[in-house]
Amino acid sequence: MAQASIGDSEFDRDTAVTARSGESGVYDAELSAGWTIIRAVNGGYLLALAGRALGDALPHRDPLTITAHYLTASRPGPAVIRTEIVRTGRTVSTGQASLTQLAEDGTEVERLRVIAGYGDLDALPDDVRTSAKPPAIPPYEHCLGPQHAPGGESAIPGSTEIAGRLDLRLDPATAGWAIGEPSGHGEMRAWFGLADGRDADPLSLLLAVDALPPTAFDLGLNGWVPTVELTVHVRCRPAPGPLRISITTRNLAGGFLEEDAEVWDSEDRLVAQSRQLARALLGA
Amino acid sequence: MAQASIGDSEFDRDTAVTARSGESGVYDAELSAGWTIIRAVNGGYLLALAGRALGDALPHRDPLTITAHYLTASRPGPAVIRTEIVRTGRTVSTGQASLTQLAEDGTEVERLRVIAGYGDLDALPDDVRTSAKPPAIPPYEHCLGPQHAPGGESAIPGSTEIAGRLDLRLDPATAGWAIGEPSGHGEMRAWFGLADGRDADPLSLLLAVDALPPTAFDLGLNGWVPTVELTVHVRCRPAPGPLRISITTRNLAGGFLEEDAEVWDSEDRLVAQSRQLARALLGA
Repeated sequence: MAQASIGDSEFDRDTAVTARSGESGVYDAELSAGWTIIRAVNGGYLLALAGRALGDALPHRDPLTITAHYLTASRPGPAVIRTEIVRTGRTVSTGQASLTQLAEDGTEVERLRVIAGYGDLDALPDDVRTSAKPPAIPPYEHCLGPQHAPGGESAIPGSTEIAGRLDLRLDPATAGWAIGEPSGHGEMRAWFGLADGRDADPLSLLLAVDALPPTAFDLGLNGWVPTVELTVHVRCRPAPGPLRISITTRNLAGGFLEEDAEVWDSEDRLVAQSRQLARALLGA
Repeated sequence: MAQASIGDSEFDRDTAVTARSGESGVYDAELSAGWTIIRAVNGGYLLALAGRALGDALPHRDPLTITAHYLTASRPGPAVIRTEIVRTGRTVSTGQASLTQLAEDGTEVERLRVIAGYGDLDALPDDVRTSAKPPAIPPYEHCLGPQHAPGGESAIPGSTEIAGRLDLRLDPATAGWAIGEPSGHGEMRAWFGLADGRDADPLSLLLAVDALPPTAFDLGLNGWVPTVELTVHVRCRPAPGPLRISITTRNLAGGFLEEDAEVWDSEDRLVAQSRQLARALLGA
């Protein structure tokens, strides 16, 4: 496959939004079946799509902090994104978005509600003080892709259409669940890229934070872990090259768990932090 | 002072909201001057106020995950909170709120925009799997209140009206900034209570996560650290007794920093997790 670029890639085509003429701030989109897990559309993909609409509607283009509440399960097919400019500011502008689809009976159903602060990452001062360290993860070639799974790709739960869009390599230390030996620590670590070679940008970071297998697998839990709410902070524009992602869950309680993700770029910078609250709907 | 109780305390009176008759989902409130730092109204107090309105408007009463975007600086005085029910569900209901005040010229200005998922903490299963550990913090009597500051209470930056509402005792290891010796680690740890003895509930947790001095002080930074966005996950109903709060900042970059807070109850349970994105407007 030829190397894709930012603006010309599977991810860009599948997150394209079209402004409706005559309806300010309203966008049409098509949810691609290429980013599904079993039948569900990936939550990070949906967030990137809403994030692209907000970047068009707001005077600033980069998400600095963006929160989505997942209301009902999205399906591949047409969607409408309605944006609202909440406040425009010099450094941060705030916007809101609602993504809806038509149900089978023709009624409009809201899939996710998003609120976000946008800015211009390139205009920020380049001071950095950090005590954060990149995750300890083996080299890419020692990490495991779906083709390394016992029984092949189809044996990995959740590894369906989206797997073909991603170049994901799991740290073997957090992949034991695939052979029935979860570590119990609630961790996932991986190298992350897009399969067509497109480099990361702030929008694709919104996908990246929700693209690894659920940490619940590493806790030894099976079943569905639907996201209730996901907040992503984009801290700087990622450099070209592969990303490293570390996700941890420390606390499962009352049927809910948090997933904290960190994304590091090829220059060892912490480019995104995210946290989601998810439900643990445990399998039978 | 007589021991206050949940429902009858300074915090409850100052976060009271009054539903407007004939305007469904609209609430009047009075922002109290008692929860200010210098002239700014505390962001956690504002979140608790919006959170109380949402708990009234939604079919569920407890915030599970709540996000606020702070748009303009609130002032003590009248405010209006308009709520919207986004979705009602069996376990989680989603709502949105907008808090506005009138500017001096009479125009309505939005102060914060909130989106939240509410549920019933008492109805959740009591399964817990956690690797999270309470912060190592000395006993309450070895920690420092404003009265222990060199130069007295008035010497502590930010320690104005709100200090009288709180029973806050800082871990000496994270209080060095008050004598010009910040640790540089970006940490704050404290015992937290309300001054009138009211026990914690989910709403007061929304205050607690934003009530400590900014971690920027422990990084050796002075100046204002306004919150852009704050998300709080309430993970269980807190037991009676004092709370322990740990706040850490790992990454300051591009003039923004994150503050991660954890709140622990007297039964060693992690009752809330929060993260905020704040701007570091450094002093001259």
